Amino acid sequence: MTAPNDTRTSYDTAQQRSDRIWSTIESDPSGLRMLTGDRPTGALHIGHYFGSLRNRVRLQDAGVETWLIVADYQVITDREVIGDIKGSVRELLTDYLAVGIDPERSTIFTHSSVPALNQLMLPFLSLVTQPELERNPTVKTELAAAGKSAMGGLLLTYPVHQAADILFCHGNLVPVGRDQLPHIEQTRVIARRFNERYAGGEAYFPEPDALLSEAPTILGLDGEHKMSKSRGNTVMLRMDADETLKKIKKAKTDADRQITYDPEGRPEVANLLTIASQASGRAPEEIAEEIGDRGAGTLKLYTAEVLNEHLAPIRARRAELEQDPGYLFQVLRAGNEKANAEAEATLAKVREFMGMVY
Amino acid sequence: MTAPNDTRTSYDTAQQRSDRIWSTIESDPSGLRMLTGDRPTGALHIGHYFGSLRNRVRLQDAGVETWLIVADYQVITDREVIGDIKGSVRELLTDYLAVGIDPERSTIFTHSSVPALNQLMLPFLSLVTQPELERNPTVKTELAAAGKSAMGGLLLTYPVHQAADILFCHGNLVPVGRDQLPHIEQTRVIARRFNERYAGGEAYFPEPDALLSEAPTILGLDGEHKMSKSRGNTVMLRMDADETLKKIKKAKTDADRQITYDPEGRPEVANLLTIASQASGRAPEEIAEEIGDRGAGTLKLYTAEVLNEHLAPIRARRAELEQDPGYLFQVLRAGNEKANAEAEATLAKVREFMGMVY
Repeated sequence: MTAPNDTRTSYDTAQQRSDRIWSTIESDPSGLRMLTGDRPTGALHIGHYFGSLRNRVRLQDAGVETWLIVADYQVITDREVIGDIKGSVRELLTDYLAVGIDPERSTIFTHSSVPALNQLMLPFLSLVTQPELERNPTVKTELAAAGKSAMGGLLLTYPVHQAADILFCHGNLVPVGRDQLPHIEQTRVIARRFNERYAGGEAYFPEPDALLSEAPTILGLDGEHKMSKSRGNTVMLRMDADETLKKIKKAKTDADRQITYDPEGRPEVANLLTIASQASGRAPEEIAEEIGDRGAGTLKLYTAEVLNEHLAPIRARRAELEQDPGYLFQVLRAGNEKANAEAEATLAKVREFMGMVY
Repeated sequence: MTAPNDTRTSYDTAQQRSDRIWSTIESDPSGLRMLTGDRPTGALHIGHYFGSLRNRVRLQDAGVETWLIVADYQVITDREVIGDIKGSVRELLTDYLAVGIDPERSTIFTHSSVPALNQLMLPFLSLVTQPELERNPTVKTELAAAGKSAMGGLLLTYPVHQAADILFCHGNLVPVGRDQLPHIEQTRVIARRFNERYAGGEAYFPEPDALLSEAPTILGLDGEHKMSKSRGNTVMLRMDADETLKKIKKAKTDADRQITYDPEGRPEVANLLTIASQASGRAPEEIAEEIGDRGAGTLKLYTAEVLNEHLAPIRARRAELEQDPGYLFQVLRAGNEKANAEAEATLAKVREFMGMVY
């Protein structure tokens, strides 16, 4: 029965490595290359923003080389219908640029546009076994979430595809939540085995580190679930101030007029305080104390106010960007071009290591 | 208990389709596109030649558009060591051209050189489930043959990769043995599902047919196994006449001096008769009768004689080709260029169907 301890040890190790990286970022970020991204399933909400987007911008601004993948093929890992994928990609690009991703410093690209990256799947698949693929708990969770009994081939091999995403650009830093750690571990294993088996022990591929963030999980406005567009419990970045106020006013709270920050006992109220805290930069306890016994109505008004204030410049930029989809796709095409050049260079080297140059 | 019947029905259907195609080849081969190929594991032997190569040349010469894949990534499905892959590819190219594959009419290409083909793995993986991948009996057999307990990721997904090989060039004809039928069936399923799910029902990808050949299986000279380089029981195309004679002389036979064609009862003698028959164009029974009671020694001399006679022009051509590896790789590069153009056009269309054009 060593598994739980192993898991804890590997979490602890990952946390320690993550802590060290945060100090490196502050001292000298020049050797760091971050790979992160999203499945393009539409516009983003404040859960995405406070939970990860803002952190990425912070890393970019600190000087970490940033690669952002729009994982369009991952849209079909758990569904048969693609829908308006181009529209979803456009929304994602709009949100990325609105929150401060700077195309001059960050490379945004789509999975389906980089054949040499996708080819890396082939040598990488030779480095993993079926039991290893099946063991991946994230894949298991996603299978359960999709409500399917039979695992699709693309979902099963998703961690290998993710390894190609990270390694094609020699990414050594992946900001993730703890639930994503097994994926990063799979990428580390693939990098290590490639180096041993094909690169004669040269550390050609880095073993990337997970960067664990302190960012909170924002619950939905129903207080029960993670914020999720499909549950309609979200504040979208693209909403205007009025709509945001209406949404926040409808948020579920409790009957106690005395506002306190108690995530365990009063999750709905605590969630609003978290949002207000994230938007204002103040501690949630301080906000709770200030509101005192003036009840959830006052908390809601305050939350909507600071949130709208925080999002105002983002939304103004967003509105501008929406007027110019041509520009957005120009940014994507430039990113794809850069990603292709990088992927082709990596693939050429991989083929050289494997002796497949004819 | 319907499986055995289902299997038989599907074999019968495949056989009927195969028979129809043979008549089409004779009447009008213009709509046919054949995809076939080999894993590059070194030079080929007469088992390869009489079992499939000669048939491919026949199809090429009949006017069937021919695509020959050198499946270099498949070398690592069941082994960790690649070895001198370039040398193996060179041997394969030499044998292909020596037996009559004509680079003006046939396209020879390597897997690892065609990224757009390999990218097709991604959408195709979304069309199959893990249980379907696991069910594939050919993959199971290969796993057992490799003597491994854990299935590698590349072996598990091999039928999907093969679907990409066949469909990227809209191949509609795949010459195979019966043991390969499940792979072709997987390709047919992937083509059908792609057309339904992503192409709005348009028959964009053909459902390829298996072309079952009447070519015999040549046993090894030990009479017990399929001819296989690793068992040392082969006659290689590249051997000279003396070496061939020596090998044939050492072939296992039995003590009965009366030569008869009895594959069940006298497999070793029957195998020599099969080789002599393939090389001379005469029926094995006729050869047996001619030799009569002059014993296995006479049979061996005759077999070596007709085999050497048949292979002489191939070996002469082979010797010429060996002097000019630059030419061989020039042929390969031209084929790779053509395959890339074809794969890029197919991938562009696939991305269009999936809405992934940005």
